[in-house]
Amino acid sequence: MPEDSTETPNIVTCTAPVNIAVIKYWGKRNEDLILPINSSLSVTLHQDQLKTTTTVAISRSFQEDRLWLNGKEEDIRHPRLQSCLREIRRLARKRRSDGDPRSTESVGLSHKVHICSVNNFPTAAGLASSAAGFACLVYTLAQAFGVEGELSGIARQGSGSACRSMYGGFVQWIMGHKEDGKDSVAQQVEPEGHWPELRILVLVACAERKPIGSTSGMQTSVQTSLLLKHRAEAVVPRRMVDMIEAVQRKDFPAFAELTMKDSNQFHATCLDTHPPIFYLNSVSQQIIHLVHRYNKYYGETRVAYSFDAGPNAVIFTLQQFVPEFVQLVRHFFPPDRNGEEYVDR
Amino acid sequence: MPEDSTETPNIVTCTAPVNIAVIKYWGKRNEDLILPINSSLSVTLHQDQLKTTTTVAISRSFQEDRLWLNGKEEDIRHPRLQSCLREIRRLARKRRSDGDPRSTESVGLSHKVHICSVNNFPTAAGLASSAAGFACLVYTLAQAFGVEGELSGIARQGSGSACRSMYGGFVQWIMGHKEDGKDSVAQQVEPEGHWPELRILVLVACAERKPIGSTSGMQTSVQTSLLLKHRAEAVVPRRMVDMIEAVQRKDFPAFAELTMKDSNQFHATCLDTHPPIFYLNSVSQQIIHLVHRYNKYYGETRVAYSFDAGPNAVIFTLQQFVPEFVQLVRHFFPPDRNGEEYVDR
Repeated sequence: MPEDSTETPNIVTCTAPVNIAVIKYWGKRNEDLILPINSSLSVTLHQDQLKTTTTVAISRSFQEDRLWLNGKEEDIRHPRLQSCLREIRRLARKRRSDGDPRSTESVGLSHKVHICSVNNFPTAAGLASSAAGFACLVYTLAQAFGVEGELSGIARQGSGSACRSMYGGFVQWIMGHKEDGKDSVAQQVEPEGHWPELRILVLVACAERKPIGSTSGMQTSVQTSLLLKHRAEAVVPRRMVDMIEAVQRKDFPAFAELTMKDSNQFHATCLDTHPPIFYLNSVSQQIIHLVHRYNKYYGETRVAYSFDAGPNAVIFTLQQFVPEFVQLVRHFFPPDRNGEEYVDR
Repeated sequence: MPEDSTETPNIVTCTAPVNIAVIKYWGKRNEDLILPINSSLSVTLHQDQLKTTTTVAISRSFQEDRLWLNGKEEDIRHPRLQSCLREIRRLARKRRSDGDPRSTESVGLSHKVHICSVNNFPTAAGLASSAAGFACLVYTLAQAFGVEGELSGIARQGSGSACRSMYGGFVQWIMGHKEDGKDSVAQQVEPEGHWPELRILVLVACAERKPIGSTSGMQTSVQTSLLLKHRAEAVVPRRMVDMIEAVQRKDFPAFAELTMKDSNQFHATCLDTHPPIFYLNSVSQQIIHLVHRYNKYYGETRVAYSFDAGPNAVIFTLQQFVPEFVQLVRHFFPPDRNGEEYVDR
């Protein structure tokens, strides 16, 4: 980076991946800091198919902070965006005052930023675009401002699950217990290369209707679902232990069964919400039945599904089973009738 | 009844009503005795539209016990049928040995019975036909054998929810705690005339697929759903108290909100079952959304829904709201496209 302050803006571009939770996050204990009511665990996808690309430019000639998402300017004043910007600038200031030699005078802390972010996948399809988006934003801002260190706690304040997209491989978001959220951070359980045979397919079903957004959905669930409270307190702690063990041992049947059970339990708590929230549609139900019939046919668990706050299925399987299962999906859900599908990881 | 034993069979015909649970029964702690994991509460419908009619004939000329359901002969050896027959004969024997003057010598305890049972509504539609059926069977058998007294414990052994169809009005099935099930019986909370303004509509949606039967469904739920266990132990006891209070005070909003929440929680535990069970289809979901939008529009709870182990909606409302709501249903679900509807009570 240049050491003198010039008119040339400081420009940094980074990409960030999508992550798919296998132990689900649903419900906050603190809305402002985005602190969850339970820990969660996810698999970070490769960036070959799904990724967010963000460019941050910092220049003293900029009049104000501005943001473009997929080419369209958005309101930069969104509180969560502001949280991330404020936290990164605070760390940059701290670093400079600590006299860190890597801190660059060229990046004026009073200078404004322009942010451009693009997803290479349909944002509306509910494919954790905000997780990749905020992870990418925080990481790119950090690079631009010369900030290093633990950043998942900042990404968390943009979008909860974004903290898990700060790492590759298998990542847990430890709920933490501190009031200020300092211990609510992501941690890598196993790195990217740990389980090379694992494959993830994303089946994009045509959404019949726009679902309720996760932020307001989980608020209502926390307020009204007695089952969610029980899940967070009594079910998930044990499942986190079991899931980490299944991942470490690369025990696919254990991993798969727990993944399906946790997806269904998350949707069960949505149904126990008042008024109830439905994210699964009839296509989702058909995929669930197909997976169970497939596993039953072979007498072993070869495929698992997981659904986030939308009807699209994420399929987990092992490399050797991909061709047959994809053929089965194409048979029951012809691409021209039911939308596209993505194969990833 | 004739006092001498003749060739003329002793013939008795009775009818029994359907009941709709507003606090749901799902899960047995004893499969043979049909003892539930939680208490439940239902509303018994008038017999104007939905009822079972059963005729029992006893004759010494009959060679064996036989049963016809809706005109078709069924296997009398079904264990639950045998339980009911055995229990009624046991009570009749006891009565005779006690020297009760009302016990009739004409009914030979060794004589065989022929049973004919008819529903005046579609049996396949999942409208609690087994509840009305077994209630009717037990009551009619009791009449034929000259047995009186508490019979809901016998009906329970035919089909759990049948015990609630032994009474009119608002009925609770107390789960009981004894191992032999003697304290697991139905009890009237309020009689039939208690809440004359309450109306119940049954909306028969075209079932997209045959759902999983309740017997095997609840078995799987008890074995696999952690949320069901919590519901039975920690949620339902409080809800029973609240529901009885709402019924006694004729507090429709309280009754309605609790009814909807409990229906959704029951379906949530089905979804938390492994493999998951779906009884609600897209039409059911649309009716749920319609009810919530309707109530929101008026800013008060005027209508509630409840779904048993099938996609058909039971609507609870007050007399004054029936015409408008029926019009709304006819508008969104034209009868010729989505099946028939029944208006009851």
